[in-house]
Amino acid sequence: MDLPKSFRTFNREEQEIFKEILANRRDVRGHQFLIKGIPDREIDQILEAALMAPSVGFSQPWEFVIIKDLETKLAIKNSFEEKNQEASHLFEEKKQKAYDDLKLEGIIEAPLNIAVFYVPSKEPVLGQTAMPNMGRYSVACAIQNMWLMARSLNIGMGWVSILDAEKVKTILKAPEDRELIGYLCFGYTDGFYSKPELELKKWDKRKLWKEVVVNGKYEVK
Amino acid sequence: MDLPKSFRTFNREEQEIFKEILANRRDVRGHQFLIKGIPDREIDQILEAALMAPSVGFSQPWEFVIIKDLETKLAIKNSFEEKNQEASHLFEEKKQKAYDDLKLEGIIEAPLNIAVFYVPSKEPVLGQTAMPNMGRYSVACAIQNMWLMARSLNIGMGWVSILDAEKVKTILKAPEDRELIGYLCFGYTDGFYSKPELELKKWDKRKLWKEVVVNGKYEVK
Repeated sequence: MDLPKSFRTFNREEQEIFKEILANRRDVRGHQFLIKGIPDREIDQILEAALMAPSVGFSQPWEFVIIKDLETKLAIKNSFEEKNQEASHLFEEKKQKAYDDLKLEGIIEAPLNIAVFYVPSKEPVLGQTAMPNMGRYSVACAIQNMWLMARSLNIGMGWVSILDAEKVKTILKAPEDRELIGYLCFGYTDGFYSKPELELKKWDKRKLWKEVVVNGKYEVK
Repeated sequence: MDLPKSFRTFNREEQEIFKEILANRRDVRGHQFLIKGIPDREIDQILEAALMAPSVGFSQPWEFVIIKDLETKLAIKNSFEEKNQEASHLFEEKKQKAYDDLKLEGIIEAPLNIAVFYVPSKEPVLGQTAMPNMGRYSVACAIQNMWLMARSLNIGMGWVSILDAEKVKTILKAPEDRELIGYLCFGYTDGFYSKPELELKKWDKRKLWKEVVVNGKYEVK
């Protein structure tokens, strides 16, 4: 079967623009969002980017819940507060102080929140039979597409993961089988940090290339 | 603390280029790869894209194993064959025939394979305390960055998931605690399909917008 092909090639200049989008994407939290709504046109483009993500066996195992109302946001924020307090205690004393000083979400400040769910299939999924997490990874890829698209639209996004996933499901009346992958906050911002905030604040160091790239095989130690 | 910011804004034309990269990315398999090596410069750019991915709590929980030698590829391919045969039987008769006709990987044909591992942290990770899969999702985001970067470089990538993750670890001598997230095949190609191959071959239908986008809350049925 001869299938239709596209021969679109990208040139050096276009590659550089893409690299700049990658390099300038940041996790944006509440202290950086501006009070300015996001037009529907932009929201649609962010969702379109999600739908262009790869999905294992073309399963498209995702759902996107668009949240703008304050009541829902407050309920979600409540779950964040609970889980954040629990989390703080897990870090050793010195880190705990630093942890408590961080602003880790922008649920209320962001004009737009999107909850992204994984929808498990009832049938076997091509490509997921040996690696059962594949559908979840497809959803994560869709989130990365949204993040980059938002950045290209000069919109900041933050991924909030300090949440009780079951509470979020209850708040949004999600069906039993759905699984929360990401809770995303979107808004215009007063500028993107030049590096990840946690790198600038020395929470952790950037790993060196040689620490994460292995040639051929791991060396047996 | 005043942190340094970047005020790079992207314009309409740059947004359109990015959208074209998203729209033209495909999963590329063996029947489409050309016999043509990938220069180191391009490999480095693909890895740099991975390292620009977001990571929960700036944990950078990833490792990338660069594989080019035939012996390793043959061993991996062997694991694919085993798992693929098992998988085929899971589909009902009609689908099984279609499944067997699909070429689902390009391990040998692709000049470059990269195995991507998740490295679990021994300490608590900021942002991962309530959602333990977050580090795995960071690795999936890094893979999506690689995929898009490869596409912008006019290089095809295929994600092979029909593998025994433990066997892949053994072949690559990976330490006990590593977890395989993706096994990626890269190569130049004779053209990218205009739509996902599984959509063109009617393996499954594209979902409608209204099937995957929910406004506000799920409706109780």
